[in-house]
Amino acid sequence: MSKLRGDTSGAPRATTPEWRARRILDRLDTLFEIGMAAGTNRAGLGPGEERAHELVAGWMREAGLEVTRDPAGNLVGTLRGSEPDLPEVWSGSHLDTPPDGGRFDGALGVLSALDAVEAIRAEAAPRRGLVVIAFRLEEGPRFGRGVFGSRAICGQLDDDEGDLRDADGISLAEAFASLGLGELPRAGWLEPPPACFVELHIEQGPTLAAAGAPLGIVSSIAGMAGLELAFSGHRGHAGTVPMPLRSDALGAAARFVVDAHDVARSLPGAVATIGRLTVAPGATNTIPERCELFADLRAPDDARVEALVDGAVAAARAAANATACEVAIVPRWRYEAVAMSPGPMGALRRALEALGVEPRELPSGAGHDAAILALAGVPSAMLFVRSDAGGVSHAPEECSGADAVALGVQALEAALRELAAA
Amino acid sequence: MSKLRGDTSGAPRATTPEWRARRILDRLDTLFEIGMAAGTNRAGLGPGEERAHELVAGWMREAGLEVTRDPAGNLVGTLRGSEPDLPEVWSGSHLDTPPDGGRFDGALGVLSALDAVEAIRAEAAPRRGLVVIAFRLEEGPRFGRGVFGSRAICGQLDDDEGDLRDADGISLAEAFASLGLGELPRAGWLEPPPACFVELHIEQGPTLAAAGAPLGIVSSIAGMAGLELAFSGHRGHAGTVPMPLRSDALGAAARFVVDAHDVARSLPGAVATIGRLTVAPGATNTIPERCELFADLRAPDDARVEALVDGAVAAARAAANATACEVAIVPRWRYEAVAMSPGPMGALRRALEALGVEPRELPSGAGHDAAILALAGVPSAMLFVRSDAGGVSHAPEECSGADAVALGVQALEAALRELAAA
Repeated sequence: MSKLRGDTSGAPRATTPEWRARRILDRLDTLFEIGMAAGTNRAGLGPGEERAHELVAGWMREAGLEVTRDPAGNLVGTLRGSEPDLPEVWSGSHLDTPPDGGRFDGALGVLSALDAVEAIRAEAAPRRGLVVIAFRLEEGPRFGRGVFGSRAICGQLDDDEGDLRDADGISLAEAFASLGLGELPRAGWLEPPPACFVELHIEQGPTLAAAGAPLGIVSSIAGMAGLELAFSGHRGHAGTVPMPLRSDALGAAARFVVDAHDVARSLPGAVATIGRLTVAPGATNTIPERCELFADLRAPDDARVEALVDGAVAAARAAANATACEVAIVPRWRYEAVAMSPGPMGALRRALEALGVEPRELPSGAGHDAAILALAGVPSAMLFVRSDAGGVSHAPEECSGADAVALGVQALEAALRELAAA
Repeated sequence: MSKLRGDTSGAPRATTPEWRARRILDRLDTLFEIGMAAGTNRAGLGPGEERAHELVAGWMREAGLEVTRDPAGNLVGTLRGSEPDLPEVWSGSHLDTPPDGGRFDGALGVLSALDAVEAIRAEAAPRRGLVVIAFRLEEGPRFGRGVFGSRAICGQLDDDEGDLRDADGISLAEAFASLGLGELPRAGWLEPPPACFVELHIEQGPTLAAAGAPLGIVSSIAGMAGLELAFSGHRGHAGTVPMPLRSDALGAAARFVVDAHDVARSLPGAVATIGRLTVAPGATNTIPERCELFADLRAPDDARVEALVDGAVAAARAAANATACEVAIVPRWRYEAVAMSPGPMGALRRALEALGVEPRELPSGAGHDAAILALAGVPSAMLFVRSDAGGVSHAPEECSGADAVALGVQALEAALRELAAA
């Protein structure tokens, strides 16, 4: 990245993709330093996110956009269209980060949308208005619930939303009020809805890098299910109970893990993660009596989520049967899959083809603001930019190379240009 | 058990097996109450074990035995034989317990030997002397090393033995000295060795109960190996990394657990226990990066221990390969298997046959004082008495039914009678 860095303050508007990528990467560094000061974190509805909104608002004004803040505190930069009665085209993402997060997640989408709209403005006013938006509090960790800004727009804040508290005991309502935003907005303001929404985002995974592709078009945002499982067997002396007479709870859980992974592998695009597993009593010379674990199951569409959950439940029962153990299964959450819209997806596809980039489609396993808008009826699409550094995300190493960033902003510009002209 | 209980103090010597079993069970209750006062524990070299030795010494004197204490504090009750120059026949076990232990482990063997020798004395002096012995500190938990009394006899205390400390910071040397036993004995006193040693012990497992058998003859005491394993993969977002691109450390560990159990099942008498397993970072939505576990591997002979360890190591490497993970394997300990001796085993076999009990053989997966004496060249054998309560051991529920206890003491008496006459 460093060879692309340079002093871009007050630089004249250049048109090379390299210059555009360099400015975006410099701005990501600037935003990252805000979080560094607070321990690599710009928590949503906190001072770090607020400072990022102020900085980006300034860059929006420099780009000639009208800057406003909506009732949820989302930052809105508008380029008026030549036909103001037509629904606008929106693009953007978020500026908050999870703890110990990286430069790219969220911020890349806001800065790319800003750059793209600035480039469109430099030529002629588009037919439809173009809006660059930075949603508030997309990340879940602070309050245990995320996608706040997009849900607020859609009138989908929960009744208890203001009562959620962070690790310091600050309620969401207090954090919101401290930004001078008053009461939480209960009603949405999606009437009239925008014509469409396009979110550019770092992939947060290794798929594009593995395919040698800089960009990808999101086909859907995964459906998800969370299952809590507890296998129960019989404690025993590690030396004195023959294998055929054992009820080894870890033996059951291990079979479940292997089989749940296999079920996911058998369903294209599905993933199964058992990230937490505990063994009791946990002594080296005692046969495990109880094994508790959590299965995070995701797939690109609801049919595959269903098949994955059914397969995992069957695997759990089979594992218990095979080991003379018992299993208790508690479903903890379930979110439906969200398909992206053919309209803005088509615009992205044509933009990639024009750049000579294969318009590869892939599902998103992570949730995004685009899923909220799509569920509320806004035709939505997402453009993924390759993750480098092994696809690592939610970590300071998170990275997209300058080549992919340059192609991403060009593709986004072309797609927004087409959508705003339609 | 309760219907067999009664006032046995000062009762006349009865000859029914039921009366003998009742007296043994009553005495086990009396010993158990010592531990109950200290939290269900009679820790070796502690006041609970000492009180148990005093009680049993009294019962030995009532039975007409000469009572001494050897340099390790082992309790020795001797019935002189008619030919005092012949090596003696020993029988016994231990009187200490692990924390939260039961009535039967150890104490049943001491009390059964005492009852058997008392019965033999009631008829005529045997040819060889008969010794009832209670070894000190058989259980490992207090100082992390057990079979103290039998190792001391064999001159096998370690150089650092006295420096071992319990959870309260008391050194083994201090605990030993507090019993008035002076310095730890460095040289053994196995010259001349006894003719043989027979240890009766609760099985501590479900094998005899599953076979519907009251008694079993131990064929060998298991060889054992302990392996520490660490699987390393790559952390990642639970939603964004496709299955084929994952290096899931728990996926690797789970395959290992399933396959290690299968290797054990393929080797008769072998067992594999993974009792401790930890997952890092341990978040439900993060692919596990590291999984550490401990494999306790045991088999009736060294060839099978070797095959089990080789199979487990191969399974670990295959699991790592199959999941794009790495594995580090550290062998932590290895003990050779100890075969029991045909001489005293034959006497036990004939004793069981005379009682109409099938002389079933089974390996011992737990270590015992008999293994120490056998390794030192003393022809040794063990008689297992059925565990009831599902084979649970090292727990207050530990239990052998009165019928099995009655058969056990009769079989031990017959075997000791034959061995002392030889």
